[in-house]
Amino acid sequence: MNDREACPFCEGHEARTPPEVYALRDRGRKDGPGWRVRCIPNLYPALEPGPLVDESSAPLFARVSGVGQHEVIIETPDHRGHLGLMTDSQVSDVIRAYRDRARSLSKPGAYRYVLIFKNHGERAGASVSHPHSQLIALPIVPQRIREEMDSARAHREANRGVCVFCRIVSTEIAEGRRVVTQNRDFLAISPYAARFPFETWILPKIHRPAFEGLKDSDCVSFAGILRDSLGRLHQMLDDPDLNFYIHTAPAGTKDDEFHWHLEIAPRLAELAGFERGTGMFINQVMPEDAASILRGDVRLTGTKDYRS
Amino acid sequence: MNDREACPFCEGHEARTPPEVYALRDRGRKDGPGWRVRCIPNLYPALEPGPLVDESSAPLFARVSGVGQHEVIIETPDHRGHLGLMTDSQVSDVIRAYRDRARSLSKPGAYRYVLIFKNHGERAGASVSHPHSQLIALPIVPQRIREEMDSARAHREANRGVCVFCRIVSTEIAEGRRVVTQNRDFLAISPYAARFPFETWILPKIHRPAFEGLKDSDCVSFAGILRDSLGRLHQMLDDPDLNFYIHTAPAGTKDDEFHWHLEIAPRLAELAGFERGTGMFINQVMPEDAASILRGDVRLTGTKDYRS
Repeated sequence: MNDREACPFCEGHEARTPPEVYALRDRGRKDGPGWRVRCIPNLYPALEPGPLVDESSAPLFARVSGVGQHEVIIETPDHRGHLGLMTDSQVSDVIRAYRDRARSLSKPGAYRYVLIFKNHGERAGASVSHPHSQLIALPIVPQRIREEMDSARAHREANRGVCVFCRIVSTEIAEGRRVVTQNRDFLAISPYAARFPFETWILPKIHRPAFEGLKDSDCVSFAGILRDSLGRLHQMLDDPDLNFYIHTAPAGTKDDEFHWHLEIAPRLAELAGFERGTGMFINQVMPEDAASILRGDVRLTGTKDYRS
Repeated sequence: MNDREACPFCEGHEARTPPEVYALRDRGRKDGPGWRVRCIPNLYPALEPGPLVDESSAPLFARVSGVGQHEVIIETPDHRGHLGLMTDSQVSDVIRAYRDRARSLSKPGAYRYVLIFKNHGERAGASVSHPHSQLIALPIVPQRIREEMDSARAHREANRGVCVFCRIVSTEIAEGRRVVTQNRDFLAISPYAARFPFETWILPKIHRPAFEGLKDSDCVSFAGILRDSLGRLHQMLDDPDLNFYIHTAPAGTKDDEFHWHLEIAPRLAELAGFERGTGMFINQVMPEDAASILRGDVRLTGTKDYRS
């Protein structure tokens, strides 16, 4: 949906969406114009609130009730906005909305995990072009998070309690080759053994388990590096379709068990039978080269080479 | 590439590919016309043969030399052929080629895993439209196979040595709701908790660890159910783009550790930020409904509903 007149997320069209659950406003009232960021329930939710009536770990037929919450975070009233091209202050509003909604849904006894993610562009699964992110609160801890926690625990046990993410941060800063950009509080890297061309991770430099623990001043700092990283991808790769998502400590975990981070996955190559069949990834772009390009050390003569 | 004149896989164009490593022929000589199925090295290999010079499990920087083999199995001389529409005898030739190449590359001391897979259609990652499959021999056991082996071991340990795949076969035959089709030797199901709309698995009914152990008579039987399953998808969903891949016991595993099977993943919906971020899947089609549609119990009025 590209037309502003038809767009339910544009300012002035608030009545076309479910009532807002959160907004940052300069003026106006709930469900009217004047907002900077606006959060609404998803009209087509993957999960809906309700009691956890059904949970079974029967060997072949494990199941759990599909209860949760599914929200849309409208990032700006500007239909043509882009997180990589906004001001840091605008992106900071978006981050504050992410954090406030994550906090609200991560309360003890509520859901087991809150995923914040963005689909940008049709190839990345976006069905509405107006800039927006999504939040899904889940009744279980996702497999990817469990895997990262298992790996982090194995690393701690083998390395006197050292957090593997803290070690990645210090090692990558020291090596430098995979650093995309950094500021005082955050580091953006092309991770070692990146799965996708120009895959980019942003991590807090100091150990921080949960995204929703972000202070107001951290919101500004994180907004700065997210805008910078997305802006580099936009500039160097001509606004690629992409997904990003935040990995954070599930509710009730200890502070040493996780170190939150954001992963950006540009959609430049199709995942095909090999990737589906193995869980392994063929990546045509070395992360050291991707970081060098995103830093601006080398100039791309065209982006076609990076699109399958 | 849709034009026969330009197609390197069409009969008469054998000189445009690397020399064949295997063929089933009615007539003619190596690298000439007269073949029914023809295997060649991939012109753009993901991995190439060589010594395993470099293997390290260093905590942050695990690595292994990218040695292996990458082959293309041209399924038919017919540029417009489709495995779901061929005769069982033609599909049987393809299966025999899969098996013979897998056997040849699975010898002890060779590679640790051989993946056979197919990308059908652009959305599934196919860059050449002439019907073909691929084979990649790998220096490591893929993550997905390790996960399936771990789950199978956990099930054996908790259930007096019973193979989880054997149990799936007997349970699904008894329940019937998720059965797509079956013959004497093989069962095709829409698996419980299917990840994708119309995801379909084909399993040997009797415990068989490795695909390459297939006897000649099994090739005919397996070809029959594969052709039947792909034909149903072609007919009911208007020739959807899809991937399929074979999961088999890695070289050197014991007979009770795995039960080979083939997984078909139609590409009807985009995997977006939620799936990438969690490893969980939102599937709009219940497997019981998918099986019912593929059995022909209910008639689809259109396929649009199943495409995102």
